Amino acid sequence: MVRKRNTERRTALVDAAIEVLAAEGARGLTFRAVDEAAGVPKGTASNYFASREDLFNQVGGRIHTRLGPEPAELSANMLAPRTREAVVWLMTEMVQRIIADRTGYLALQELRLEATRRPELRAALTATVRANLDGNIAQHTGSGLPGDADSVVLLYFSLTALVVEHLTLPDVLDGHELGELVRMFVERAIPAD
Amino acid sequence: MVRKRNTERRTALVDAAIEVLAAEGARGLTFRAVDEAAGVPKGTASNYFASREDLFNQVGGRIHTRLGPEPAELSANMLAPRTREAVVWLMTEMVQRIIADRTGYLALQELRLEATRRPELRAALTATVRANLDGNIAQHTGSGLPGDADSVVLLYFSLTALVVEHLTLPDVLDGHELGELVRMFVERAIPAD
Repeated sequence: MVRKRNTERRTALVDAAIEVLAAEGARGLTFRAVDEAAGVPKGTASNYFASREDLFNQVGGRIHTRLGPEPAELSANMLAPRTREAVVWLMTEMVQRIIADRTGYLALQELRLEATRRPELRAALTATVRANLDGNIAQHTGSGLPGDADSVVLLYFSLTALVVEHLTLPDVLDGHELGELVRMFVERAIPAD
Repeated sequence: MVRKRNTERRTALVDAAIEVLAAEGARGLTFRAVDEAAGVPKGTASNYFASREDLFNQVGGRIHTRLGPEPAELSANMLAPRTREAVVWLMTEMVQRIIADRTGYLALQELRLEATRRPELRAALTATVRANLDGNIAQHTGSGLPGDADSVVLLYFSLTALVVEHLTLPDVLDGHELGELVRMFVERAIPAD
């Protein structure tokens, strides 16, 4: 099979696959559905992905890029005073950015569940998520910001579930303002001096 | 349509539906798949559920029962000294019980994602999850155990994501012992006196 090297087209197809995943679930992710979502001729996706497994794996890689931290924002943070308040700001920005990519984050949850059925996808997603977490720990503990590795781990888990709740069952949070919850999580994760 | 009142049979069918959800995802949850998983004659599920929507909603209700706290364990805890260590014990028990019902918890995550597509299911799950959370807050703050409502909220979110990680991408936690993470979460969520 000839794999075309049109990177932009490939990225557009993977982004279309993310839309399909979020809208239809993992079982709905087929070459045909990707072609339709991307508005390309039937058969196009099969030129870009060796198999359905390959499609899942490429989506796993792309999600990482879409949801990862943006260097510019992190640099801005490096200029801020190194206080717990700066961490609140940083985490609030991160949560807002993730929520803004609702489709990407829902697709990631679909991939997590599909990973229980696909060992190759599980290995790829594990590497991605682990690298993100280790990177966050290294960056945070090297930044001079308050908080230790445990703070980063606790924030990773609590904010992940908070975002999933907001995107799937938002009314569970009725009466809780999202920003206030992020602040509370940071203040507990990073004990005051 | 006649709805049979055989409660045991209904529960068995709903439990079979939970197996299907965890194994195949939400799109795989059909009457036919439920009949097969339950080992009953084709057409049985259609006598117990008015529609696929009804099936999803009944699964949502049953998950609550399967994953909810067990009174006996909570009573035992009420006898323990009311210390932060008792909370560590209680949370560890809860996490172990949820992990032991791997299928039930994975099915709940499938339902969460399906709830983004089904308003009726979303309303039912929201009511269930919210009632659980409010119940946990009321029970904890009335128990004399250390920790406030914010502690319970932070533990709810952080432990939820921890369990999902353990069930979907367990190797992300390599080098972190589950029990040690639960302890760390409790110790941050409930500041020392």
